[in-house]
Amino acid sequence: MPIVQIHLLEGRSLEQKKQLVSEVTGAICRSIEVKPEQVRIILQEMSMDCYSVGGGLFSEKGS
Amino acid sequence: MPIVQIHLLEGRSLEQKKQLVSEVTGAICRSIEVKPEQVRIILQEMSMDCYSVGGGLFSEKGS
Amino acid sequence: MPIVQIHLLEGRSLEQKKQLVSEVTGAICRSIEVKPEQVRIILQEMSMDCYSVGGGLFSEKGS
Amino acid sequence: MPIVQIHLLEGRSLEQKKQLVSEVTGAICRSIEVKPEQVRIILQEMSMDCYSVGGGLFSEKGS
Amino acid sequence: MPIVQIHLLEGRSLEQKKQLVSEVTGAICRSIEVKPEQVRIILQEMSMDCYSVGGGLFSEKGS
Amino acid sequence: MPIVQIHLLEGRSLEQKKQLVSEVTGAICRSIEVKPEQVRIILQEMSMDCYSVGGGLFSEKGS
Repeated sequence: MPIVQIHLLEGRSLEQKKQLVSEVTGAICRSIEVKPEQVRIILQEMSMDCYSVGGGLFSEKGS
Repeated sequence: MPIVQIHLLEGRSLEQKKQLVSEVTGAICRSIEVKPEQVRIILQEMSMDCYSVGGGLFSEKGS
Repeated sequence: MPIVQIHLLEGRSLEQKKQLVSEVTGAICRSIEVKPEQVRIILQEMSMDCYSVGGGLFSEKGS
Repeated sequence: MPIVQIHLLEGRSLEQKKQLVSEVTGAICRSIEVKPEQVRIILQEMSMDCYSVGGGLFSEKGS
Repeated sequence: MPIVQIHLLEGRSLEQKKQLVSEVTGAICRSIEVKPEQVRIILQEMSMDCYSVGGGLFSEKGS
Repeated sequence: MPIVQIHLLEGRSLEQKKQLVSEVTGAICRSIEVKPEQVRIILQEMSMDCYSVGGGLFSEKGS
């Protein structure tokens, strides 16, 4: 029943996303004793024009 | 004042989205006594590469 | 697979919450052809000190 | 450490987004005594087919 | 119509929250030409047991 | 820069939360090549009166 949302900058390959959801699901199952099929993960990709740290967009400064 | 976010897989028609927000707004109004104009709904469409159940992406297994 | 988050002001009775999740689940199933067991809803209750419209907290002005 | 998510209708220029994250970061720093580099902001743009007030999509009625 | 969610560590005074929502609303109105009454802000307070940077909870290390 | 939100039912011990954020941070770092200090995790605990699957609250049926 854990529901996970991960915001990350766009540009990851499909392979990286596959590994990401697989590893995070495993990490959750080991930690709080749930089964993999109970874990839902939403990946939310952000463009560099839509993410800011310190008051400036990422697209202005590179990552 | 209820604010609703609905994550759903992409691919719904405009007609389905219209029905969805109309029906959900009605359901909320009947249940907690608010007026339709107080209900805001954000639909957040996910690609099948960005949603995982059981540790695998939907794009790997179909929905 | 739809995942729904509903932010609402605190103070609803358990009966209202039961009705809310039941009605919203039904509304979604009718609209986008999913089964009830695929619909997950998270209710997120906000205190009136934590919600603002127009630049003022609700606790300052009543709802 | 504040993490901010702003849902807004799509169609803002890059200049507006720059100003938005800069101004919101400043507003937070003045109010709760954090430093700019602690403030993260995610802009989440919604299409007019994905936002509803009062039971109807924005694309049906204009904004 | 912008909808804002701000996650911040718990422990801010009511005065700080009032200032926060007022200043952030102003910042948004100046940047993207909306009116204050269109801006909704949800403050989501996190306990120090529920926030992590770098793999450790805040309650373990202080803020 | 990944920002993670995990909704889970309340009732986990502090030890479980520590392990959860530590393991999830590790999983993300291995998968998408970021450093631990770039990973932020928000745990959002839900009461059983605020989570629904299949149209009924968890508090009605047990977990």
